[in-house]
Amino acid sequence: MSGITIKLLAEKLNLSTATISKALGDSHEISDATKQRVLNLARELNYVPNAYAGSLRRNVSKTIAVLVPEVADSFFSLALNGIEEVALAKGYHTLIYLTHEKLEREQAILKALAGGRVDGAIMSVTAETNIYDHIQEFNRQLPVVFFDRVCEEIDTAKITTDDYQCGYNATQHLIEAGCRKIAILSIPNNNLSIICERIKGFKAALADNGLNAEDGDILYCPEEPGDSYNFIKEIMFSGNPPDGIVATVEKLTTDIYLVSQQLGINIPKQLKVVCFSNQASVNILTPSLTTITQPAFEMGKAAATVLLKSLRNNELIMKEESMVIPSILMARGSSVG
Amino acid sequence: MSGITIKLLAEKLNLSTATISKALGDSHEISDATKQRVLNLARELNYVPNAYAGSLRRNVSKTIAVLVPEVADSFFSLALNGIEEVALAKGYHTLIYLTHEKLEREQAILKALAGGRVDGAIMSVTAETNIYDHIQEFNRQLPVVFFDRVCEEIDTAKITTDDYQCGYNATQHLIEAGCRKIAILSIPNNNLSIICERIKGFKAALADNGLNAEDGDILYCPEEPGDSYNFIKEIMFSGNPPDGIVATVEKLTTDIYLVSQQLGINIPKQLKVVCFSNQASVNILTPSLTTITQPAFEMGKAAATVLLKSLRNNELIMKEESMVIPSILMARGSSVG
Repeated sequence: MSGITIKLLAEKLNLSTATISKALGDSHEISDATKQRVLNLARELNYVPNAYAGSLRRNVSKTIAVLVPEVADSFFSLALNGIEEVALAKGYHTLIYLTHEKLEREQAILKALAGGRVDGAIMSVTAETNIYDHIQEFNRQLPVVFFDRVCEEIDTAKITTDDYQCGYNATQHLIEAGCRKIAILSIPNNNLSIICERIKGFKAALADNGLNAEDGDILYCPEEPGDSYNFIKEIMFSGNPPDGIVATVEKLTTDIYLVSQQLGINIPKQLKVVCFSNQASVNILTPSLTTITQPAFEMGKAAATVLLKSLRNNELIMKEESMVIPSILMARGSSVG
Repeated sequence: MSGITIKLLAEKLNLSTATISKALGDSHEISDATKQRVLNLARELNYVPNAYAGSLRRNVSKTIAVLVPEVADSFFSLALNGIEEVALAKGYHTLIYLTHEKLEREQAILKALAGGRVDGAIMSVTAETNIYDHIQEFNRQLPVVFFDRVCEEIDTAKITTDDYQCGYNATQHLIEAGCRKIAILSIPNNNLSIICERIKGFKAALADNGLNAEDGDILYCPEEPGDSYNFIKEIMFSGNPPDGIVATVEKLTTDIYLVSQQLGINIPKQLKVVCFSNQASVNILTPSLTTITQPAFEMGKAAATVLLKSLRNNELIMKEESMVIPSILMARGSSVG
């Protein structure tokens, strides 16, 4: 791409982008004189027409798709609310698709959507997503904005939080609270950007405090919900259990608390816990749960704002719109005392 | 409608519904002999062709819409999983629309969908929905299945749980646990079928035990999340606070527990609580929360099964498919002791 957009041509000629678009498309609605002016400038600036302008001109469905792995997680439900708030204000419909952490579903959904049902997509990839052709293919035709779980391989806008710093801060907090054997808990076999960053932060905090991250301290829970309970129980029942846990997914909270109750492990005396969670109920747990609280609603709003901007400007590539919105560590009873 | 359907014609002639449909539509794919047989029987039985068969024949989007008020509620997120499991198995896409409890949004979404984007809809109405023209209008063209929050005014399939019995059982449980002044808490100004039924059950249980439901015992929390905390605080701070609460919405749990903590009210000694909730975290609250656990996943599966059946059979009216799937009262620490 030469960097010359329809928007730029419109600005230079003091015409609307719609007029430029129609002139380049040889529309009968535009006078020959105007067409000539537009074509002259386009040649002069070496304007390369977007091969997929046909798709973008179809930008009339006034609908955006949102692909999320699940909604039974307060981060995603809050982010959806943020996306919808912006979309609604601009007269856009939002279609929500659940991928259920399946790459196959993500592929099928994007393929179906490329048919023109929506004007663009906001997505958080599945834990299985380790190939990106389907996203690239979609993005050749329609704009994509990633939020939270991103693909570095795709050159578009990414709305994230400071996951590395979150992993670092959670670990540092536990070390300062007296922990010396900290484990980080995650969901199974995944390639997620966010989990990698949190683990990097975890390792860095340990290293900065002269502690070593052993392999055994980076733990991936098995797939089934019931299994994660048994998995955590085994860890806590082992000869050398952790004295601190960073849980990277909110749904692990229940199992950590249940195992502790069953084994008579006192939180926070024997085990300190920090969890990535946006649930209101963290305040009424006993003890209340220390959390990394992510700016879910704000991330959703930002993602929708960037996508709608790209639609207005008829642009597929928006990497300069990426942004990082920091999370907050909220210290509560599960890590203090 | 005469009650004679394409399905019935198909059964009587031992042909597929597709063949009947094509024969009635004078398709070139069907032999003249077969067309004659179909037309003869149709006349004999006084078959009235569905005026909207044109819409139903457009049943090719292989997409169903689901309208829910929100996803930050475990009932709806579990129900969505049930719907998607069935839809996926049958090769259907599911589009999720959030109404955010706004009638205006529900109207706009159904209007947009009637344009042909989907083959049918599964819906749980908003708390504001007190007129039904928009649903009737949609249902003239495309099939609708209600789940949980239904409209009695619309003559179609309704997948519900036994809300009256749930209200009754929750109240009876609190009375047996020793409560004598029980309040039922709900969300603001609503016309919801489910809440009406639960309140009816609440009143019946009180009456059966010789207790009166005073006006003040049926309480509607204000709209904003922060407000319900203050609302509950005022109730508990009053001269005559309840000794038992039936909370009809899971998100009220956090505020009830927080207020009790702040005012030093012991649950369950001074206040017993039963809440409609499907959250896993009810087990790790102190005390653990007694719940009415709804068959959310099963209700979602049933709703999708009925809708897909109606699409297969080209039928708009499916009231004979309505079903009631019972909920379960799970007694835990918040109401015992």
